[in-house]
Amino acid sequence: MPASPIRKLVPFSDAAKAKGIEVFHLNIGQPDIETPQLALEAVRNYTEKVVKYSPSEGTYSYRKKLCEYYEKYDIHIEPDEMIITTGGSEALLMSFLTIMDPDDEVIIPEPFYANYNGFAKNVGVKVKPIFSSIETGFALPDIAEFEKAITPKTKAILICNPNNPTGYLYSEEEMETLRQIVLKHDIFLISDEVYREFCYEDAVHYSAMKLKGAENNVILIDSASKRFSACGIRIGRMITKNRDVLTAAMKYAQARLSPPTFGQVAGEAALDCPQSYYDDIVKEYQSRRDVCINGINDIEGAYCTTPKGAFYIVAKLPIDDSEKFCTWMLTDFNYNGKTVMMAPASGFYSTEGRGIHEVRISYCLKKEALQEAMAILKKALEVYPGTINN
Amino acid sequence: MPASPIRKLVPFSDAAKAKGIEVFHLNIGQPDIETPQLALEAVRNYTEKVVKYSPSEGTYSYRKKLCEYYEKYDIHIEPDEMIITTGGSEALLMSFLTIMDPDDEVIIPEPFYANYNGFAKNVGVKVKPIFSSIETGFALPDIAEFEKAITPKTKAILICNPNNPTGYLYSEEEMETLRQIVLKHDIFLISDEVYREFCYEDAVHYSAMKLKGAENNVILIDSASKRFSACGIRIGRMITKNRDVLTAAMKYAQARLSPPTFGQVAGEAALDCPQSYYDDIVKEYQSRRDVCINGINDIEGAYCTTPKGAFYIVAKLPIDDSEKFCTWMLTDFNYNGKTVMMAPASGFYSTEGRGIHEVRISYCLKKEALQEAMAILKKALEVYPGTINN
Repeated sequence: MPASPIRKLVPFSDAAKAKGIEVFHLNIGQPDIETPQLALEAVRNYTEKVVKYSPSEGTYSYRKKLCEYYEKYDIHIEPDEMIITTGGSEALLMSFLTIMDPDDEVIIPEPFYANYNGFAKNVGVKVKPIFSSIETGFALPDIAEFEKAITPKTKAILICNPNNPTGYLYSEEEMETLRQIVLKHDIFLISDEVYREFCYEDAVHYSAMKLKGAENNVILIDSASKRFSACGIRIGRMITKNRDVLTAAMKYAQARLSPPTFGQVAGEAALDCPQSYYDDIVKEYQSRRDVCINGINDIEGAYCTTPKGAFYIVAKLPIDDSEKFCTWMLTDFNYNGKTVMMAPASGFYSTEGRGIHEVRISYCLKKEALQEAMAILKKALEVYPGTINN
Repeated sequence: MPASPIRKLVPFSDAAKAKGIEVFHLNIGQPDIETPQLALEAVRNYTEKVVKYSPSEGTYSYRKKLCEYYEKYDIHIEPDEMIITTGGSEALLMSFLTIMDPDDEVIIPEPFYANYNGFAKNVGVKVKPIFSSIETGFALPDIAEFEKAITPKTKAILICNPNNPTGYLYSEEEMETLRQIVLKHDIFLISDEVYREFCYEDAVHYSAMKLKGAENNVILIDSASKRFSACGIRIGRMITKNRDVLTAAMKYAQARLSPPTFGQVAGEAALDCPQSYYDDIVKEYQSRRDVCINGINDIEGAYCTTPKGAFYIVAKLPIDDSEKFCTWMLTDFNYNGKTVMMAPASGFYSTEGRGIHEVRISYCLKKEALQEAMAILKKALEVYPGTINN
């Protein structure tokens, strides 16, 4: 695997900091929101004398409580239809291992979360990207594009909804389209819904678990990381109503013994957060998003749509090459001793040459910081040697 | 993957308990020793407000402290020569992914830890077992056996030292033999040393990391689980001086983001345990081992050697079929309302038909319980219909 464009920037960011330059990190999805106190309290109050292996599928009490959580969204799941995993990452890896063999193919609308490549590589599976465009706000490509990409080797379509890196929220109609495709070709829909609650302007998330008749085709990936600002607890889950998939996945789950005990304790307690917890976070992120959208669209030649979910924006900038530009921001530029680190969007496309005019902005900083970052970005584009003037 | 013989027994064990029968669990390696208080305290005292991703390779402070731990054993490692993993399990998976491609081969002396099969299967790698015999106490097979098994597809030899399931502790001479083989054929030696401290009768553990000249061929697998009776924290590590392997493994580490934060906190604190902590545990396990060895050798037709490490014994019993016998112990037998659950050794052999007269006994229970379990086993063999009378 090649090093991701974000990873390549880290030494430059470190060097900038060593020179005393303040770097605004718009490059990573590490929320700054506090982990719920009740989750931290539950870990503090852990009283077992031996930190034993939990069951390979996760503790029953946690899985049961997760079912109640899903009921709030009108998603009906039984405790034995899920396996608690070490982060959403392991849920993805386990899904790939379970339903695919080496040389099989998975279709993913690009741009997509770069680590999907890593899991595909682990299993020897080929990613077939289909293009979603910034012009349409990264909506689902036309059904014909999927049909063109499907081969006898295609085992699944993988989506992230709301999307990392685009923030795009798939509509009920788009999900219906996916339902038709997976049923027609009898393939799987792996739906990564870790940003479920991060929906703005009262937009409603439509889960793949609601697709009627496709119950045996859907695998849901979920995680406590972003929802509860608890990325370090490493707790996710793989959910499906397909018994064969569950049985096969359990073999992998048993081989790695169990998911982390403390993380499960924290994750279970976090489910007691009141609705106001989610509401406050959504309000906060929506206002952060708006700061970024306004900031970007205020820059001549820059452009972004208004994504309805997650905490990312892919923005088009008037630049020659986003990797060059993001590097230059760290190595050659600062404004009053400050600069901005962003993720070159090329790292989220699997098709060579795409995304070179785009960056991903993660709005996990406070509004004031984002405002300042946008002003710095504007200044940078005024002096960057590779800025394209229309 | 077929269900392991141990897993198949679980429903029978549950049914026995439902009938009010007390089951002594000699089937699993879940230590009953308490997790060190200072590890639990460290988790209780965690004061960060956001449980963030840790670095993909693990926190620097933990890795640095682990280097100090290894120095005690005269093993010299730098913090950047290790990646903290989600248990030893992930360290094994990551090693396989890094050094092997599908259809490659790994040589493992059998009987071996059954989950090695799972990781091999994940990566599409073929396990080539070579036979170690109960008659020699499961010593390393002759060098000629390795030579016979090595093909152009062979990428590694994997050992567990001290061994699960046999308890065998490899001698310095045997390690030297392995050094010669891996250097001659330029393959890797993956050495799973999670039971390093569990050595009895003052036997000294000889780490693969000490093999001079083989630094680039050795990958060390380690874990906090057994050492600190903290299986649920899910913290292990992969260690190597081979830069190419480290670089490749880091890609996998980055794709899955990070190891668990709370587990690292607990693991780091546990390293402050005084030497007396290890000494007490070794003393305790050695006396438990002796109870089992005496108990087994007191049974007519039963046999085991005196393994020098870990907390397992593979014993030969005068029975027709260990899977049948272990099942019968749960379904058809009890002595004063009590019975014993053991692991049929066939599950630890990859060669069909081997281990059918052997069971693995894990001595993770208190001495009194083990004494009673041995008495029950003796009684059982007197009445088991498949007992073979010499």
